[in-house]
Amino acid sequence: MTSFLVIGHTASTDASFPLDDLPGMGGRMDLISRVIASSLFLSHGIRTDTICDILLLGPPHPGRIIRFDGSDLKSLSPDERNIASYIKKALAIPAGRTYRKAGPGLFTRKGTLGDLITEKNYAVLDESGTDIRTVALEDMPDAFLLSDNRNFTEDERSVVRDLPKYALGPSIVHADHAIVLILNEIDRRRSGWI
Amino acid sequence: MTSFLVIGHTASTDASFPLDDLPGMGGRMDLISRVIASSLFLSHGIRTDTICDILLLGPPHPGRIIRFDGSDLKSLSPDERNIASYIKKALAIPAGRTYRKAGPGLFTRKGTLGDLITEKNYAVLDESGTDIRTVALEDMPDAFLLSDNRNFTEDERSVVRDLPKYALGPSIVHADHAIVLILNEIDRRRSGWI
Repeated sequence: MTSFLVIGHTASTDASFPLDDLPGMGGRMDLISRVIASSLFLSHGIRTDTICDILLLGPPHPGRIIRFDGSDLKSLSPDERNIASYIKKALAIPAGRTYRKAGPGLFTRKGTLGDLITEKNYAVLDESGTDIRTVALEDMPDAFLLSDNRNFTEDERSVVRDLPKYALGPSIVHADHAIVLILNEIDRRRSGWI
Repeated sequence: MTSFLVIGHTASTDASFPLDDLPGMGGRMDLISRVIASSLFLSHGIRTDTICDILLLGPPHPGRIIRFDGSDLKSLSPDERNIASYIKKALAIPAGRTYRKAGPGLFTRKGTLGDLITEKNYAVLDESGTDIRTVALEDMPDAFLLSDNRNFTEDERSVVRDLPKYALGPSIVHADHAIVLILNEIDRRRSGWI
């Protein structure tokens, strides 16, 4: 099982955000949608061993978590608009402190980075980190924390400061592209490719 | 310079396709938009040394090429809807047999795979191909031909049969994700990373 947690610093927590304006009124929900697609889609199917959690920190109720669990997702298409419609569906149900099901493979609850960070052994990406290609299968993290298009805030940096850090290459890429690289690395290790 | 050529087997060649239905009436224009984003976007900028050509084969006038040239693109955002609006803009101008400029870094012409394939030394992706990680910088192809969500047709296969073949890993991934992996490989070679 591989897990991703992505912070959407401006991502709307109002289910009424318009599907026609994911970058603006959605608060970069386009990027969040692509992150989910990168985590879950193979060419002809869903990665059933992968979970993608999104921490939405936009208005009006920052601190909402949406979970996409590949083991049970149904009918998801990879286009931004379709994925964002799942997020809207999850935002539309009331959320408490524990996960509530909004559909097959789709869950939501309230929470903070401080809550989430203790639940798994997260690693983060950092240019100065260990090159992920040098990591053996048994040392490969199974949970990765990423930020959206913004850097971690000062508060977030204090939470993630001591987490293991990995680098993906010489170019700094979008979060959705970073996830593609991480999963390729894990796929290769598990299948005995170099 | 790295070039990608992606075949959009059903991608609309009518500039009036709706931005609200890229997968359906756009003929999987969502996927085409993501392929362009993968080819051109870094975290904070555009890959100025990369070109992404799309061969649109959907109705009503199959055989239209749209070129996104990173060296001159302006104001492109990575969301599907924005990129698709550039494709609409390029489709809206009349096209002949040579490239015509539709905007900064945006060009269009008519053409077939047979025309395009002779213009660069293309490589293709194939599970049975050489693992791209084993390829030295000097042997790395600088032009890649990919298909959308469909396999190459029989006619296309006859055109690409003798091209060099490379594999990216044990999992077959979407074309946009494949491009992320190829560019990471090239970035690493050029920067002396393993």
